[in-house]
Order: sequence, then C-alpha cells, then structure tokens
Amino acid sequence: MKQRVDFCIFFLNLLFQYWEKAEFPFHVIPKLGALRVAGGTIKGYGCPGHSVTGAAIAIAEIARVDASCSTFILVHSSLAMLTIALCGSEEQKQKYLPSLAQLNTIACWALTEPAYGSDASALNTTATKVEGGWILEGQKRWIGNSTFADVLVIFARNTTTNQINGYLVKKDAPGLTVTKIENKIGLRIVQNGDILLKKVFVPDEDRLPGVNSFQDTSKVLAVSRVMVAWQPIGISMGVYDMCHRYLKERKQFGAPLAAFQINQQKLVQMLGNIQAMILVGWRLCKLYEKGAMTPGHASLGKSWITARARETVALGRELLGGNGILSDFLVAKAFCDIEPIYTYEGTYDINTLVTGREVTGIASFKPVALATRSRL
Amino acid sequence: MKQRVDFCIFFLNLLFQYWEKAEFPFHVIPKLGALRVAGGTIKGYGCPGHSVTGAAIAIAEIARVDASCSTFILVHSSLAMLTIALCGSEEQKQKYLPSLAQLNTIACWALTEPAYGSDASALNTTATKVEGGWILEGQKRWIGNSTFADVLVIFARNTTTNQINGYLVKKDAPGLTVTKIENKIGLRIVQNGDILLKKVFVPDEDRLPGVNSFQDTSKVLAVSRVMVAWQPIGISMGVYDMCHRYLKERKQFGAPLAAFQINQQKLVQMLGNIQAMILVGWRLCKLYEKGAMTPGHASLGKSWITARARETVALGRELLGGNGILSDFLVAKAFCDIEPIYTYEGTYDINTLVTGREVTGIASFKPVALATRSRL
Amino acid sequence: MKQRVDFCIFFLNLLFQYWEKAEFPFHVIPKLGALRVAGGTIKGYGCPGHSVTGAAIAIAEIARVDASCSTFILVHSSLAMLTIALCGSEEQKQKYLPSLAQLNTIACWALTEPAYGSDASALNTTATKVEGGWILEGQKRWIGNSTFADVLVIFARNTTTNQINGYLVKKDAPGLTVTKIENKIGLRIVQNGDILLKKVFVPDEDRLPGVNSFQDTSKVLAVSRVMVAWQPIGISMGVYDMCHRYLKERKQFGAPLAAFQINQQKLVQMLGNIQAMILVGWRLCKLYEKGAMTPGHASLGKSWITARARETVALGRELLGGNGILSDFLVAKAFCDIEPIYTYEGTYDINTLVTGREVTGIASFKPVALATRSRL
Amino acid sequence: MKQRVDFCIFFLNLLFQYWEKAEFPFHVIPKLGALRVAGGTIKGYGCPGHSVTGAAIAIAEIARVDASCSTFILVHSSLAMLTIALCGSEEQKQKYLPSLAQLNTIACWALTEPAYGSDASALNTTATKVEGGWILEGQKRWIGNSTFADVLVIFARNTTTNQINGYLVKKDAPGLTVTKIENKIGLRIVQNGDILLKKVFVPDEDRLPGVNSFQDTSKVLAVSRVMVAWQPIGISMGVYDMCHRYLKERKQFGAPLAAFQINQQKLVQMLGNIQAMILVGWRLCKLYEKGAMTPGHASLGKSWITARARETVALGRELLGGNGILSDFLVAKAFCDIEPIYTYEGTYDINTLVTGREVTGIASFKPVALATRSRL
Repeated sequence: MKQRVDFCIFFLNLLFQYWEKAEFPFHVIPKLGALRVAGGTIKGYGCPGHSVTGAAIAIAEIARVDASCSTFILVHSSLAMLTIALCGSEEQKQKYLPSLAQLNTIACWALTEPAYGSDASALNTTATKVEGGWILEGQKRWIGNSTFADVLVIFARNTTTNQINGYLVKKDAPGLTVTKIENKIGLRIVQNGDILLKKVFVPDEDRLPGVNSFQDTSKVLAVSRVMVAWQPIGISMGVYDMCHRYLKERKQFGAPLAAFQINQQKLVQMLGNIQAMILVGWRLCKLYEKGAMTPGHASLGKSWITARARETVALGRELLGGNGILSDFLVAKAFCDIEPIYTYEGTYDINTLVTGREVTGIASFKPVALATRSRL
Repeated sequence: MKQRVDFCIFFLNLLFQYWEKAEFPFHVIPKLGALRVAGGTIKGYGCPGHSVTGAAIAIAEIARVDASCSTFILVHSSLAMLTIALCGSEEQKQKYLPSLAQLNTIACWALTEPAYGSDASALNTTATKVEGGWILEGQKRWIGNSTFADVLVIFARNTTTNQINGYLVKKDAPGLTVTKIENKIGLRIVQNGDILLKKVFVPDEDRLPGVNSFQDTSKVLAVSRVMVAWQPIGISMGVYDMCHRYLKERKQFGAPLAAFQINQQKLVQMLGNIQAMILVGWRLCKLYEKGAMTPGHASLGKSWITARARETVALGRELLGGNGILSDFLVAKAFCDIEPIYTYEGTYDINTLVTGREVTGIASFKPVALATRSRL
Repeated sequence: MKQRVDFCIFFLNLLFQYWEKAEFPFHVIPKLGALRVAGGTIKGYGCPGHSVTGAAIAIAEIARVDASCSTFILVHSSLAMLTIALCGSEEQKQKYLPSLAQLNTIACWALTEPAYGSDASALNTTATKVEGGWILEGQKRWIGNSTFADVLVIFARNTTTNQINGYLVKKDAPGLTVTKIENKIGLRIVQNGDILLKKVFVPDEDRLPGVNSFQDTSKVLAVSRVMVAWQPIGISMGVYDMCHRYLKERKQFGAPLAAFQINQQKLVQMLGNIQAMILVGWRLCKLYEKGAMTPGHASLGKSWITARARETVALGRELLGGNGILSDFLVAKAFCDIEPIYTYEGTYDINTLVTGREVTGIASFKPVALATRSRL
Repeated sequence: MKQRVDFCIFFLNLLFQYWEKAEFPFHVIPKLGALRVAGGTIKGYGCPGHSVTGAAIAIAEIARVDASCSTFILVHSSLAMLTIALCGSEEQKQKYLPSLAQLNTIACWALTEPAYGSDASALNTTATKVEGGWILEGQKRWIGNSTFADVLVIFARNTTTNQINGYLVKKDAPGLTVTKIENKIGLRIVQNGDILLKKVFVPDEDRLPGVNSFQDTSKVLAVSRVMVAWQPIGISMGVYDMCHRYLKERKQFGAPLAAFQINQQKLVQMLGNIQAMILVGWRLCKLYEKGAMTPGHASLGKSWITARARETVALGRELLGGNGILSDFLVAKAFCDIEPIYTYEGTYDINTLVTGREVTGIASFKPVALATRSRL
C-alpha cells in the first residue's frame, strides 16, 4: 500500500513531462519492476501468479496514475509474456520469463500490420522455412515497446501451411528495423513502432511451438482484452480523484466550484459511470475465472467500458475549465490517453460487432458482395 | 418458474389493451397475489420476508412484462405496507398486513402534494388533534393506486409540533375525495389520483406511532428507492427480449434486420447497458443488506440506472421501426413507461444533487438568495 | 394572424382529449380548411400556391400546436393532392383538387405495405389490366387518413410491365376494407389504417397517367420530405413555448424553476437546437426552390432535424417533471408525437444511408450476400 | 483562391511538427500576413475592412487547415487590434494598426487572471496613476501570443476609480515577465503565457482612452465571440474533408471503409452537424451586421456550435481508427484543438447561463448565499 502511494506521488510529480516530450521514462522501469506485477496471471517462472481479478486491479491502479505505464506493462506482460507462457516450450519459458518478470528485459508483441487493423487475421508477414530456422519478411505497425524491447513476439504466415506461426525475435537481429511512430496524441509515453523485417533469420529454437494458427492467439487475447478493459476504469478513477479535489479547491464567483449545480451533476455522472464500469469489469473477470467468458463477453466489456470512460473523462475535462487542457493537471492527459484505448485490441465498433455476431448468430463485419473470410 | 411463464404469456396477450384505455385490470390482482410478492421484505404477518435482493428481482421480473403492474405492487408493498411494518403499532401490523400481503385489500401511500414535488418535505396538509383522533385537511397529488385503495397511508403536518405524522385513512372516510389523473403517457395502467382531504377524521388508533418527523419516512424511502431502481432494469430486459426476437424475424432488403451493422450495434449497446444496470442494482441491494447504503448510494443507483434505461428503450424503439410506436409490440409501451419512473421517487436531477451533496459536502438544491431549508 | 391565434387557443384547450382517446376531431376539419393551407404548393385548382418555404412554415405552425393535425394535412396535401397535381390528368386535377383544397373531401396516400417499410420500392400489391379498367389486389399498411378518406391514392405493380402505377380509389369501392391501426403511442389523432384490396376494380379514368415507375413517386416524396422535416421544428417550438412558461410559473424550494442552473442550461440547449433546426429546414426549402435539392439533401435535413427534435423534446419533458408525463401539459404529447415522425418517410437510419450513398458513392443498405436491388 | 490552396498545402505538410513540439512557426507569419486577414473588420489604417461575415469565413478557412493559426490571428486581430480600433485614440490607431495589419508587429490581449476565469470581471491587476503615466501591478494568465508579442493590451483596475482601464504595454517594458504555459494538449502552436507585472510603468500616451469600465470590453468581445464561433466550424470542415478522403482510400475486409453502414452513418452525422453549424454561425453574423446581436445570441452561437463541433470531431476521430490518434493525420490534432475553444471566451457552461439569463430574466451564475456581483 505504502509502495503504491509512493509510486503515485512519484508519478504525479514527474511523468507528465515525459508524456509531453513523448519519451519513455526508463528510470521508472525498476520501480515498476518492484511492484511485482509483470507476469500477472502466470504461475511459476518468477511470475506473481495473480488471479485475473488481481492482475486487472493492478493494471487499473497503475492506469489511475498514468495510463501509458499501464499499457507498457500490459503489452509486456499480458500479451508478450503470456504468449510465451501459453504457447512457448518449457525451455523458452525458463529462458525468458524470469528476467521479463523482473523487468530486467522487456518484450513486445507484434500482430497488427499497416494494411490490417480491424481485420487483424489477414496478415501478410511471411515465415519461410530454411535450414536451421525461418526467414521472416514483412511489416508490423503500432507495436508498443518495440523501439527498445529486448524480445519481440512476432506473428507471421507460414508459407508452407498458410497458417499463422509465432516467433521470438531478438532486438539486434540482422534485418530488423524499428521506427518510432511519432505524433501520437495519447499514451505518449508508450513507444509504438513500425517494424520492418527484411530477411530476418530466426533459429528453430525461437519458434513458439504452441502457435499453429490464428486461433492460438485467442487464448492470449482473451486475457489481454480483460486487462485492457480495466485501463479505462483506472483512468476514470484517476480523473474523478482529480476533479473531486479541484472542485473543492478552485473558487469562482466567491464559492468553490463544487457548490454549482451543473458541476455537481457532472461529478455524480462520472461517479455513476465509474461504479458501473468497475462492476462490469469485475463481472468479466469472474466469468473468465470460471471458464465461462466468451469472445462476445470480452468484446462487450471492453467496448462498453471504454465508451463510458470516454464520456467520463470528457466530463472531467469540462470540470477543470482552462486547466482541463494542461497535461500537468492530469485530466487532460487522461482525456487523450483514452483515445488509443478506444481503438486498440479491437475498435469500439468492431467489438460491438463481435458481440453482435454472438447474440444474433450473424456476422456483419463485411459490406455487401465481399469475401467470405470471418476470422475475427 | 412455470408460474412466471404463465404470468408472462397472460400479460403479453392482454395487458396492452388496459394500458391503451388507461384502465386497471382488476382481474389480474388475484394472479399477482398468487405470485406471493406483496409484502416483499417484511417478515411475519403473512409476508414473504424476501431479502432486498430477492424482492428487487421480483419487481424487475414483473416490470419486464409490464411496468405498470410492478408500480402497482411497489406502491402497495414497498411504500404502504412497509410503512405500516416499520412505523405501525403491533395492532396495526396484525390488522392490516396479512390481508394486504394477499392482495385482498390494496393500499396506497400519499406524500407528494400539488405544490411540492422535488421539495417533498415542505408539505402543507395538516393534522389537527381533536378528541379521539385527528382532523386531516389538505391535498395530495400523483398518488398511485389511490382511486381504489382500501387503505391510504397519508402524511400530514401536525399543527402542534409542526412535524410530519402518518395516518391510515380508509377508502370511505367522509371528506375524502380521490380524482383519477387522466392523460398520462406512461404507466397508464397505474391509477394515480389527486386526493382532497376536507376535514377527514382519523381515529387515534389509525395514527402511525412511528412517524414523528419527515426523517421517519426515510427508512421506507431507502427500500423503495432500491425497488424503483430495479424497475428500469426489468423494463429494459423486456425491451431487449422483444428486440432480439424482432430483429431475427423481421426482414427487409431480403435479410433479417439482425444482419445489419447499425442494428447489431444498437442491440449490443442495449445489452451492455442492461448488464451494467443489473450489476449496479445488485450492488445497491448488497450495500443495503449489510447496512451500508447511504441516501447518496440510493440516489446514484436510481438516477444512473434510469438514465441508462431511457437510452436503452430509445434504442429498442428505433430497432422496431414503425412497429416501435405500437404499444401491442410492447417496446413502445416500455418507451413511455420509463418516463414517469425517470421522475418519481426523486427526479433524475434531484437525485444527482442528493448524491452530489454527499460527495461534496455542499447542498446545491436551491438557487441564490433562497431559504435555508435542506430536508431532501 | 388572428386566425392562427384563435386556432391555437382552440387546440390548446381541446385536442389533447382526442389524442388521449385516439379519435379524430372531425369538427376541426372546417377550421383547418379555413386556414387555406391544403394544396400547399399547388398552383391553380383552388389551391393556395404557396412557395415551398411558405408551405413548410404553415406545417410547422400547425405542428407547434398539434403534430397530429399537421400530419393529417401533410398526408392529404403534400402526398395525395400533390400526386394528383404532378401525375394526374387535367380532368383528374379539375375533378379532385378544388374539393380537396377546401377539405370538403379528404385524401390519403398508400405506398407502404406490411412486409416493406424501409425497402419501400419492393411492393407486392398488383394491378392487372381488365376491360375498362384495372383490378387491384394486395395490402397496404400505416396509411394515414385512410379510415375515413374519400379518395385513396394507391400504388400497385402493373402485372404486365412489372412497373409501379398509381390509382385513385373511392372510399366505397367494393373489395376495399380499411382497419384502423390501434395502440399508437404518438400522433394518436392521426387515423392510420391497414388497407385490404380484394379484387378492387378501378376504371381506366382513375389511373394516374403520370405514374409509370417507382421513380415517379420521387417528385412527390421530394416535397413531402421537406414538409416532414418541418414538423419536428414546429413540435420543438411548441415544447419550448410551454417549457419557458412553465419554468417561470412553477416554483420549488421557494424559487421559480427558471432560477436553477440545470434547468436554464436545458432550456438554452433546446433553444440552440431549435434555432439550428429552423435554419437547416429553411436552407432545405431554398435548395428545393432553386432546383438544387438532391435526395441526399432531403434525407439529411429530415434525419438531422428529427434527431435534434427528439433530443429537444426529451429535454422539455425533463423540465416539466411529473407534469411532463401528462398529455394535457402538451409536452408529453409532443414527446410521443416525435416518435412516428422519427420513423416515417424513411427512418432515421435509412435516411442517413441515403445521404451516405450520395456522399460516398457507395450504397450500404443491404447486408452481405444479398440481392442487388437499389431502389430507395 | 490559389493563394489559399498553396497555404493549405503548405500547412498540411508541415504544421503538425510545430504542433507536436508546441512551438510557433515564425516563418509562417509572412505567409499569413500575405493573406491580408489581420485587422479583419477594421476599416482604414491598412486594415482589410471585411464584413463580419467575411472575416468570420476567413477565420474558419484558416481553422480548417490549422486551428492554432486561426487563434493566433484571432487574438492579434479580433481582440488586440480591434480594441485599439474601438477604444484607442487616433494617434494610437495610426501608430499601431498599419504594422499590426501587415503582421510586421504582433499583439496580444490580456484580461484573464489566475484566480478569475469564468468570473472575468473580477480582476485584481491594478493601475495606479503616477506622474506622466501609470504603474501596473498584477498577473495575467492564458494570454495567447504573449510570449513574443510586440504590443500587449492589458486591462487593470484603476486604483482611484476602481474601474477597469486598458493599456498598451511594450514587449521590453521593465518589470514585465512572460512565462510560456507548457503542457497544453490542444492549440499547441499557440503560445499562451503567464504574465507577471511588477511595477510596470506605462506612459500616459499608452493608456487607451476608450476603456473606462469593464463594459467597454464588451464591444470587442461581441465581435471576437462571433469569430470564435467560426473556429469550430472550420475545424469540423477540415475533419470532414480528411475523413471523407480516408474512408474512400483505406480498406478493411476487402472494401473501402466508406462501404460500411456504421461508417457512413457517422460521416453523415458529421455532415449534418457541419451544415447546421455553418447556418447558425452565418445567422450570428447577420444579426451582428444589422445591430441586433445580443450577448445571449453570441453565447448561444458559440456554445451550441462548439458542442456540436466536439461531437463532430469525436466522430471523425473514430472513423480514422488507429490513425485517429496521430496528429499528422490532422483529425487527432483537430480533436485536441477543439478543447481549449470549448473553454475560452466563456466556457460552454457559462455561455449557456449567459443566454439563460437573457431568456429567463434570472441570473443563475452563483450558488446560494454568495455575493451579488453580476458582471458577466
């Protein structure tokens, strides 16, 4: 608890400067490591082995202070580490997980490509079998942590089977180039990269044996989507904290802002949303924990929560008036940070259609007269 | 279960006609009585003694079929019967509750007056002590069930103490006149009345000994506000049921309506709202059951849920197109029924300000330069 | 002007009772006739020959008092009479229009069928050529004024050409049955009918020579859609009038409701919407008058205005609190009346897609893998 | 026209980089000067003498490309230059306006103080008469262009009369310190400053003779509020342009994004909003031009337009998916730029209450039991 409080104060004073410059605060990594949250739900290999609920609350509490840090952890832990834990060999787990759990090494996870966002399964990166390993060729986009990650989990289409396979690529692999994506308006601390793979050789031992089709990513995405759903919850709680304090302290017309009807109503609307978001997130965790969570549940949870969070942070930003556009007052930062979350791990619209397919039995992703793929 | 299903089918086929004519289906009372829900949380005296959660779910399930019926029960049970149970003498409880629990006699509950809606505590009806009893004088408005209730719980200001007292008035008391409020657009089956009390004598034995100030109504309102919060949940579930079926059955452009992106998204938005509403309602019950529910909690729950329900039934009404304006397709009826609920037991705005006062410590009900009462 | 004022007062006092009973106030027809608005934009034949702008404002002013009356006029005038004026022979115009313009006879206009709402062009009613005339066979639904109309404009598919033709059917034609649609929640004064045509004979002279395909209805729909767009404007103005007065008169907590921040903000949001709606409606008229209005313009105007009106009347309904659910306070009536308008002459969703097709060049009405018709 | 096009292309390629770094592109000033828009409505003194409508459209067209540039011009021209033109002496006009009109010198306008945002009239900066001039003492906040402006228009309270006076302060005046406000999320190119005035001497000749009370600022604010209302219009048009192009070019699931129902509907909702915003803005100009614009009109226009713009850019940002968070795709930049505009020149809430006061006759700015000032 004390740890969390220190962590918060630390961030409150400093992180917005990194956000402003869109730089990563590397000196924070040991502090985040000391929180012992990386590895989340993984058991053994030096990982905390939290319940999904526990891991989700940890993500929310980090997001409450700074959403970028929670995304950094989420990509590293709930996407990359979890893929190794679920799809890696015993040797791979022993080799990579302990160091990743300590944040001594950092990982990223590369699925999305420039041409395929919502239609993620349609990837073009290829893996061609050669003697002793594989040759990867293609591009990835938006990959968080990729500009400095030590290990990159990369998905590619096996040119023989035409199925998706997974590989562990090292930071310094010849042919690998990562370019930082500039000009982001949200989660500016997260370093997203455009990855170019030109004849990158990956030895056989670094192929993940458990990834043999696109479906094998779904076990990982099931967990990560739950985690992502808790980011907007944390962000909204942080915004509420700040607004509550600000309304009591700031005065206009001789009274604290908290005394005005319009302001009180906004604050209460925020509180109502947050309470509901927490309950929806909690229910999602419980469904997962008892093995009953479907893709439709996860998509509904993520999309519904994110939409409410967007509404909530906009109300908060209004409550701060002019100071609502300054990232050092935190609310403005949160207002921007919710935007990438609205889109990643399935945009709001795509997630509603994933759930829509589940409740109606009819897929509606594609417009008229288009192909029959349905791999979402 | 079988009972509920029969009950549903019964209603689905017939109740909209009473709703259309704004008449009460008296023949339904025995059927509702057989459900054994009246008396809800009251223990003993022939009442079911449900948990608050159980009673709330019963209200929601009735509202799922017809909201007016749930209001009829709620006024009778969670307002009138509960006031007798909490503020009545042992004799009063034994005399009234068993018959009310069977729905052999019907009760109503009269607090609101023509001039005071949101400012409910400012009532003008008076109770003057006379030999052997009291004389009630004044007006009440909006009182559900009052046009046919056998027993009317009536609140009046004691002219000696200036405090609020409670009385049990019989249907045929001389000086009592009840006029049905016509032209309602929602809950049309519920018979609301304007009550006129002209020198109505109430014997001493019919004064409720436990009501000695406005605060004494708050124990009752705490429960009823929880129950009211579950009505929009039930209504929304009923609308979802109907829309889900309609989208699968109705075709346009050669496909079921369920196949259209826009329709699927609306259905999913409804589902997300409903899931959240249920969880917020459930949390409210749990807070109540462990004695931790504050007025701010109840107001937040009621207002947040009602606002989401209004959004949800509007989406449902859109999904039904032209049939969305016909009460026999149920969605239109629900669309109208949510409106009185949005307002009764504290309007949306007043409830947000009740919670706002609790979270900020500042009351903002009154505009500038007005009196200092704060009795909400 | 005096005429309008009298007309308003007349309505304000009486019409809600007809609305409540879902009956048509036939005694009002002569009063509406005296307003000289029927026939709207038609020149000659005893019609007023208003500009589109003038006719639209007349519709709005009637809707400001009672939306049902404006729909009654609109169906009669902008659909039925205009079809005769644009697609009728000289004899038909001379025979029908003068009496219709006086409201001595009443007309209706029947396109929609039970199975085809949004997909209106796909109609099943047939017209088969026989000696001396035609045999009509089929069903129509939702046809306003049809339960008492003297003349019914009916569209049917010519069994020889497979194209849409138009016919004038008399009230007492053998084989024609009209059943009133009951249980409407809005525009309750408007009498919509289900029409059954069983071997209805129409003499050759009653076929409209100008209707030779579905496209020929579009000239009429272009005008009527502009008129329909002005109904929500009128409704919203009426609601604003009432709310403005109510907020000044009704007191709570010792002050007029107009003194509360939350109420003022709602009133101003209504005003902002109304100003914008009027300007959008006015622009639509001007585009029409200079021959530049496309289907996309009309659909955008109708859908955008209707969505804003729905928002506006909901705000108004909130401002009236409990009295906001009583149709005699007019706002509740308006709140319900906007709903059928949201749907008729193209639902909100269909209209956005009509405009969407125009601005993107791509039709998106139909879901995947469906037929290629595109006749909206 | 050609000029505007070049200007646009120029900006499209480069300005987001300055926005990203929150730096001002000084090399753009001559290009903006060549547009001949500075001085806007001022006649003579080398100013363009546009109509209010013309000046407003110019502001919108600049905002369409980059909102920060439009704010730079607006502060310089519609606030600072206009104050000199309306409240300055003939000598002051001749001395300052021609160079300002060329953008050879740059001005700013300082009213807001750290403690007073919405309650702008309550300012603490003082002006004390001394021999040959005045001593200014106090602080200003949020002042656009102030970090590099050559001339600062500064408002202060005359310590003798207790009324507001206006002064022209030079960039290098001893005692004047301007600190750039860092960490803005929107309008990042605009350089806002915190101004500290420590015994700043202003010679008599630099006092604006026409500013003798707070009311004298209202003539200026009337124009500037109209101009500000056109910024969200321009921003929204720019976002629409970009989205329209993006939806046609970007493909997913084998079809352009423009082919999806949900996307088409969003695009059309944007278009409907924009059309209405333009008409409301145009009406505001016309009211101003005929001398009929009240403060309530201006506040309604500004607040209503800004709220719709916020909705519009959020829809646009959704349409761009992941690329919707990159400022180089322009929509993300616009999404952020609307936020300060939502707040400056009167927050949304304050502007609704200004109009609310006008339509109800009751001021509701202050909460209960507070002072009686009403100088908004």
